[in-house]
Amino acid sequence: MNLRDYGLASDRRTVLEKELKLTLPNIGSFTLDEKIASSRNCENMIGVAQVPIGIAGPLKVQSSIHSASSGQAFKVQSYYLPLATTEGALVASVNRGCKAITESGGAVSYAYRVGQTRGPVFSVKNLEEQKKVYDWIKKNEAKLGKVAESNSQHLKLLRIKVRGLSNYLFVRFYFNTEDAMGMNMVTIATQKASELIEKETGARLISVAGNFDIDKKPSWLNFINNRGFKVWSEVVLTKKVLKDVLKTNADKFFEVWLSKCMIGSAMSGSLGFNAQYANIIAALFIATGQDPAHVAEASMGITTAKVLPNGNLSVSIYLPDLSIGTVGGGTGLATQQEALSILGVAGAGNVEKFAEIVGAAVLAGEISLISSLSEGSLAIAHEKLGRGLR
Amino acid sequence: MNLRDYGLASDRRTVLEKELKLTLPNIGSFTLDEKIASSRNCENMIGVAQVPIGIAGPLKVQSSIHSASSGQAFKVQSYYLPLATTEGALVASVNRGCKAITESGGAVSYAYRVGQTRGPVFSVKNLEEQKKVYDWIKKNEAKLGKVAESNSQHLKLLRIKVRGLSNYLFVRFYFNTEDAMGMNMVTIATQKASELIEKETGARLISVAGNFDIDKKPSWLNFINNRGFKVWSEVVLTKKVLKDVLKTNADKFFEVWLSKCMIGSAMSGSLGFNAQYANIIAALFIATGQDPAHVAEASMGITTAKVLPNGNLSVSIYLPDLSIGTVGGGTGLATQQEALSILGVAGAGNVEKFAEIVGAAVLAGEISLISSLSEGSLAIAHEKLGRGLR
Amino acid sequence: MNLRDYGLASDRRTVLEKELKLTLPNIGSFTLDEKIASSRNCENMIGVAQVPIGIAGPLKVQSSIHSASSGQAFKVQSYYLPLATTEGALVASVNRGCKAITESGGAVSYAYRVGQTRGPVFSVKNLEEQKKVYDWIKKNEAKLGKVAESNSQHLKLLRIKVRGLSNYLFVRFYFNTEDAMGMNMVTIATQKASELIEKETGARLISVAGNFDIDKKPSWLNFINNRGFKVWSEVVLTKKVLKDVLKTNADKFFEVWLSKCMIGSAMSGSLGFNAQYANIIAALFIATGQDPAHVAEASMGITTAKVLPNGNLSVSIYLPDLSIGTVGGGTGLATQQEALSILGVAGAGNVEKFAEIVGAAVLAGEISLISSLSEGSLAIAHEKLGRGLR
Amino acid sequence: MNLRDYGLASDRRTVLEKELKLTLPNIGSFTLDEKIASSRNCENMIGVAQVPIGIAGPLKVQSSIHSASSGQAFKVQSYYLPLATTEGALVASVNRGCKAITESGGAVSYAYRVGQTRGPVFSVKNLEEQKKVYDWIKKNEAKLGKVAESNSQHLKLLRIKVRGLSNYLFVRFYFNTEDAMGMNMVTIATQKASELIEKETGARLISVAGNFDIDKKPSWLNFINNRGFKVWSEVVLTKKVLKDVLKTNADKFFEVWLSKCMIGSAMSGSLGFNAQYANIIAALFIATGQDPAHVAEASMGITTAKVLPNGNLSVSIYLPDLSIGTVGGGTGLATQQEALSILGVAGAGNVEKFAEIVGAAVLAGEISLISSLSEGSLAIAHEKLGRGLR
Repeated sequence: MNLRDYGLASDRRTVLEKELKLTLPNIGSFTLDEKIASSRNCENMIGVAQVPIGIAGPLKVQSSIHSASSGQAFKVQSYYLPLATTEGALVASVNRGCKAITESGGAVSYAYRVGQTRGPVFSVKNLEEQKKVYDWIKKNEAKLGKVAESNSQHLKLLRIKVRGLSNYLFVRFYFNTEDAMGMNMVTIATQKASELIEKETGARLISVAGNFDIDKKPSWLNFINNRGFKVWSEVVLTKKVLKDVLKTNADKFFEVWLSKCMIGSAMSGSLGFNAQYANIIAALFIATGQDPAHVAEASMGITTAKVLPNGNLSVSIYLPDLSIGTVGGGTGLATQQEALSILGVAGAGNVEKFAEIVGAAVLAGEISLISSLSEGSLAIAHEKLGRGLR
Repeated sequence: MNLRDYGLASDRRTVLEKELKLTLPNIGSFTLDEKIASSRNCENMIGVAQVPIGIAGPLKVQSSIHSASSGQAFKVQSYYLPLATTEGALVASVNRGCKAITESGGAVSYAYRVGQTRGPVFSVKNLEEQKKVYDWIKKNEAKLGKVAESNSQHLKLLRIKVRGLSNYLFVRFYFNTEDAMGMNMVTIATQKASELIEKETGARLISVAGNFDIDKKPSWLNFINNRGFKVWSEVVLTKKVLKDVLKTNADKFFEVWLSKCMIGSAMSGSLGFNAQYANIIAALFIATGQDPAHVAEASMGITTAKVLPNGNLSVSIYLPDLSIGTVGGGTGLATQQEALSILGVAGAGNVEKFAEIVGAAVLAGEISLISSLSEGSLAIAHEKLGRGLR
Repeated sequence: MNLRDYGLASDRRTVLEKELKLTLPNIGSFTLDEKIASSRNCENMIGVAQVPIGIAGPLKVQSSIHSASSGQAFKVQSYYLPLATTEGALVASVNRGCKAITESGGAVSYAYRVGQTRGPVFSVKNLEEQKKVYDWIKKNEAKLGKVAESNSQHLKLLRIKVRGLSNYLFVRFYFNTEDAMGMNMVTIATQKASELIEKETGARLISVAGNFDIDKKPSWLNFINNRGFKVWSEVVLTKKVLKDVLKTNADKFFEVWLSKCMIGSAMSGSLGFNAQYANIIAALFIATGQDPAHVAEASMGITTAKVLPNGNLSVSIYLPDLSIGTVGGGTGLATQQEALSILGVAGAGNVEKFAEIVGAAVLAGEISLISSLSEGSLAIAHEKLGRGLR
Repeated sequence: MNLRDYGLASDRRTVLEKELKLTLPNIGSFTLDEKIASSRNCENMIGVAQVPIGIAGPLKVQSSIHSASSGQAFKVQSYYLPLATTEGALVASVNRGCKAITESGGAVSYAYRVGQTRGPVFSVKNLEEQKKVYDWIKKNEAKLGKVAESNSQHLKLLRIKVRGLSNYLFVRFYFNTEDAMGMNMVTIATQKASELIEKETGARLISVAGNFDIDKKPSWLNFINNRGFKVWSEVVLTKKVLKDVLKTNADKFFEVWLSKCMIGSAMSGSLGFNAQYANIIAALFIATGQDPAHVAEASMGITTAKVLPNGNLSVSIYLPDLSIGTVGGGTGLATQQEALSILGVAGAGNVEKFAEIVGAAVLAGEISLISSLSEGSLAIAHEKLGRGLR
């Protein structure tokens, strides 16, 4: 049986059902445009997974800081967050965080475009050649940019980082990919730039992706030097909100944050100094057509908490490595497009705004979970929501 | 607007559509059982995200090694992999890896249950109390196990690891959760055990989850001491398969593996010494109702390659930290249940088999991508499949 | 010129002086027993480096906790710390920390013997063999211990940790080496044990040291699972001492600790969540004949600080990986032996006591430096002491 | 007893001997200039530790690559390495490596000055202020440089890296400190620059050293973005040298390197992908008056090995983070000065040359140890040399 011989999802499904002696009526029920999905998003398509979407919010986000690249300040606005998840209690948890933030005046978010990266590895003969190739690259950044950008109007080479060993040279290209996550176009662009390096220097390309990008793996390189967007979001929770909405107080929250997110993560050798970034990122990514494999990177980052003299609490999140887009990839599929529309960020011109919302949503998740832990209700919430025992 | 006031997804959706002045017909189209989904999996549910499922395979897997916990050897069998993804080229890539493995005689997989973990953090007064609590826990493992297991028949405490500082004590409980991923039940169980520790020792529970679990963040603790299942999978690719199916050879494959997965990952400070574990894990997880936030952990691991004298190539993967289940969580939803059925692992008694299939699928992904990189075709594949330019 | 042809340091020195046209009168001035040093400690010996020793203290240390291995509680005692250093301000800094601790009633230290480790790597054919060898090792720990211990009466195998990949098996042997740091004897013992594994299982030893020890490199394996001794030391600094001796207060100290040792180290991807462990470790190690290459490991660890309600401050240190000895290696050399005598720990039966003193000394260093940073005097201290501008 | 009340080492020693009822004749025997040592290098000085110095070499080093900062190529030259150590077998091991390198035509080394760093942490109110301070620093690098450099003619600000959280701002200043290791001067310079930032922006300096330097701790920040000097050294070992001098061959060496330095270090979560950098660094540092606490950083780095078609073997080392000096600190002490003279690098104008020699020495250590492991003789060497059983 070769599923590639069949042109329609229903045909492939029928063959598979026959082969495996089972029926797949639900996978076969979908409304998305099969022609587009099967050619752009998913080979050998037989149907879809239906992942429940719940709504958290409204979440008030004020982006009072001018965006670095656009010079434009986004207005204060309230958002409803579409979260695709099968894990009970998650939407409820984020929802409570949204309420706490919104009643405290809203989150302030700021997104900075670092650029999407590809990091090829080259073979060099020795130190002398390594140095020579290094120098050539540094002197020819403009030339490399021109070649790299030739394939797309939506691509701009931002900068190049080079690191060498005696027999290997790692190059890290950073690109502005506009509103696309952009891994496809940066791969093609890097291939072209790498071929120019080969031609001009004699270095031999071993792999266009040399884990110096580094794509879809947790890494200190991305944590420290960043990738995609880096995003901060913060809020000052009032004493009243801490008590009424979150059933905790500033000191208890701070103690959990310090012992869990800082000391616990240090004891564990973790790159995630936070409570649950991955949960919120995964749910937003699946709903909006992002690449969920990027959760491997986006789970890194640092949450901070600071008790203020008046009993209020400043909480913030920092995402050093967020790869997202509002065009391309899975964003054009029907349900994903609708999810982006719920956020008001479908299509071009919206990616920074989207990044800032993601930051605020992650902040909501941190606030809710750390509060819950600080008053001992996590296990209870799991009993009630996670296992359907309402 | 408070979405929690509405009982049906359609009502919530209508309210939201009105509020945001848009329509969500596709999110609203689903066949899963809303009553179950909205009570167990997703609060404030308004509908679903449709994620395309493509099929890779057949993938031949032989589990010649007796399972540690069941003492039972699974038969050689061929599997079709349901991959839920919106990233073009992924299914095709895995499919090629499946072909290479199958034509080389199949993958050998082995899964070992480490146990699901929760890691609370306690406040202790000083070193003396830390030592006292440590000793109490070590002497009362049986008692703690009894209390922890009281809430579920599907739970068994396996062992406890304790690490202290002067003012903090971190405890890591490992549980056998049978066929469930089990985070919900281990949270409740850990809460109970922690309350006993509080009562008997005077230590104060700060947080039932102290990032010493450590859940949904990349960490060396989980890499080194493992979590959930650890899974190995291996295959010896024949010279012929390397040439005909993978368009490469053993030496070229080895060079990419060494420079990318080992040296490149070292240069990047990564916990992922591999090519694309996260891609395959994410796609399988979404299709089969696993928790996709666990991609943050499951992207860790080491791929190995070894050139054999006859020009064949031994390739293996190692997943040190895989959290999965075949019951509970999202596995009971209609499309997810069907996806598990495609693999033949729906329901109880199948989780180790499922782990071994995941390992073999990840191996297929590694083989295909590293081969592609070694012959320079990744960028071309992205041009053809990833952007719909067939 | 081959220096090995000469039997005396003076002869080698003379030859070298002639060859290089210089004189080395100071290197040639020493009182240690050349015969012993040149045969046990240093081949091709030409003389010595003179490293200034300064004294910090008295440092009051109370070990109120019974030692795990000896069951014996050490008495409260005051120590003078011999610190070999060429870095101005270090002795003065530690001295101030000693004063603060002593005036607060003394440090409480606790040392736990984890055991010295060697971690060979074996070649195995595949998963099946890996599993077979793993099982054999687990079943034959007693037998392996007997072989390993055959070469020395001062050696006991404590436990074995095994981790495998498809083609590699890493084994970590933990030994009690009594009062010796013990790397030499554990290497020989591991070689013997490895040969038995080879003989009985067919696995092939690639290297008796496979970086799974892991020796003299910073690593999460040693941080998390520990090596040598792990040591805690703590003190509650009174409000008065904070003000009078340390010129700071609890809140200022806490702020520096949190932002530097926790958040700063997280931002830097560090394994050292502390201020200056390495300084104190290096100075004590050189003075007392330890292996200073172990500073690479001993610089890891976590300092904690906690403000108490009355304005006092609890401070602690945690050394997860301390390799030391009071016999063997450099401890028998004349000045090193004297330095150990200053601490009252020369010779057998003293290593745990020594470990607890090292812990308290490290604590003194943390207290002094963090205090200094908190009141802005580090730069001034460097100007006065570090550059000789008194 | 307060040792600071005494002006002479002999007086302090006498008091200490009386107090502790012991004699310290060897510590009291030294030839270095006490007045200088006790005022610049070591407070409360009572004498010295005598650390045996052995000589390895000659080691042929060719620096065919023009130095980045001086534009000057150093000549091919042979060096004798002064290694201060108490660990038997180390000098013999390095010596063998030197022979192998020299008989293969010499090592090629290259040192690149990254700059010495200090990384203060500031308190900022929120994201908006963080952004404002960030912008101010970026716009005023010249001004900050002027202030920072005002205290010394031997100091130049190279660049500034800034990373922020909502309530914290970390700044990393990189300085050219000429021939000094320079931590003292960069601390003073950073204090001045930080005060300007405080004055101009309103940010509050929490600590002039915020572990964003990061000093004397292993860290990915220094591994990835480097500190002090980064140094490469390489050699092609001939088949004959591998056999005659090193008793191994290229394939066996490669296998140990791959399984130990790459895979073993990955399994251990290490930042040291090498065999024994720390040993060589520590011995050279103590002999030449460097700060041995920097071993914590200098033990990081990657060794590479590559089998060439003719059976030769290319081996290289990479030190990403080497902090050294030929003036200042302990370099001016009598024996340390002589050790630098043995290398021909005493005094100003020599630091890059010194860095390149350190690199070649580290390479010698790697070659010798990995060879020894590959032919199974490490344990034997330890038996013979390490324990004085010749």
